[in-house]
Amino acid sequence: MKTLGILGGMGPLATSDFYRKVIDLTPAQDDPDHIAVVMVANPRIPLRIAAWEGHGPSPVPALTVVARQLVAMGAGVIAMPCNTAHYWYAQLQAAVPHAQFLHIADEAMRAVAARHPQARHIGLLATHATVKMGLYQASTATFCPTGASILRLDDEAQNQCSASITAIKAGNLAQGAQALQPAVKALIAQGAEVIVLGCTELPLVMQSLSKAVPLIDATETLAQAAIAACNT
Amino acid sequence: MKTLGILGGMGPLATSDFYRKVIDLTPAQDDPDHIAVVMVANPRIPLRIAAWEGHGPSPVPALTVVARQLVAMGAGVIAMPCNTAHYWYAQLQAAVPHAQFLHIADEAMRAVAARHPQARHIGLLATHATVKMGLYQASTATFCPTGASILRLDDEAQNQCSASITAIKAGNLAQGAQALQPAVKALIAQGAEVIVLGCTELPLVMQSLSKAVPLIDATETLAQAAIAACNT
Repeated sequence: MKTLGILGGMGPLATSDFYRKVIDLTPAQDDPDHIAVVMVANPRIPLRIAAWEGHGPSPVPALTVVARQLVAMGAGVIAMPCNTAHYWYAQLQAAVPHAQFLHIADEAMRAVAARHPQARHIGLLATHATVKMGLYQASTATFCPTGASILRLDDEAQNQCSASITAIKAGNLAQGAQALQPAVKALIAQGAEVIVLGCTELPLVMQSLSKAVPLIDATETLAQAAIAACNT
Repeated sequence: MKTLGILGGMGPLATSDFYRKVIDLTPAQDDPDHIAVVMVANPRIPLRIAAWEGHGPSPVPALTVVARQLVAMGAGVIAMPCNTAHYWYAQLQAAVPHAQFLHIADEAMRAVAARHPQARHIGLLATHATVKMGLYQASTATFCPTGASILRLDDEAQNQCSASITAIKAGNLAQGAQALQPAVKALIAQGAEVIVLGCTELPLVMQSLSKAVPLIDATETLAQAAIAACNT
């Protein structure tokens, strides 16, 4: 059984949510049945959105240091519960060639394709950076049937989604839940057959969302993939 | 600001609960306001109760390795969210002399003394090993007023408390909550003025417990102490 490395801290609450999901999804009767985990949660990794927008330092050097620390601690599989940071996925995987670095959007879209093979209109709730960098569009092209595509929110709904993420990062879950409702409604109105929670803060308020269409929690799919990868 | 090292995995759910409490208790508006955390959750550390009872290998070598790993990863403060493992506290603190190794029972009893200075009859919910090794009795003698003492459960109620812990470790929270009720009732009947949850699995079912007397969550007191220690 391999050790799971969690490249965390982006943000801490999302990291904690991911770790809890790894535990909850592991069939276990006692402590030794669980996966060994090493985690580094450095909340001072340069901010990802600012870096992607070109007005902040790159997070790659700090992320690379942490990825190598995790490998040095024994991690054979690495999961990074932050969608936006996957913009630098190729560089990070290259920095730790002997570890399996999971890709959150790939795992989410694999799950969409498996659970909702008929879906062609896929809603995405994510940071504006994740949306604009095309992270989920690329994973959809790889894992979903021809014709499946990611719906785009208009600017107002996207801004509300981003405000929700900011509120959750500040620990205001009720405010975050409320701010997210218009984006969910907009995606349903646009014909979304399934909605992906493609920012790791959003599952923290998932229970308050409309169940009118199925929701896919990218964090949960990453946890499932991590358990499977550690058990191979 | 110091980095917090979490010596975890005993059990994983308790570790996750502790980390979540550190996050929730930290005043933060965005990721960089949080404490940096490194964690090693090795669920195959030799079982603590078996070792204490003399029919299993000592966990000290494995715990020492992890404590040193945490220091090597930058931890200046170490917290171990497992009460029973504090039997070996002195050896572990000695193994990492340059880090501040927090003591969960000391933090819990410090909180009891601060929040309930009049209390003299203190209920304890813990593993039978934690009870019998006198972990909380020693911390009570150090931090609580003269005359304060830990109430002992009878064997039947203690067995139910232990069954509750086993159920929670297996992920059966509803069963764990139910099994714990008789022990809580017994402590109240014995005159407990405050009850300490002195096993890190028990806060996972705390919300289902009677509020007839105040409850002290040892995990939460450890989280508060960890935040304070990292900020000094």
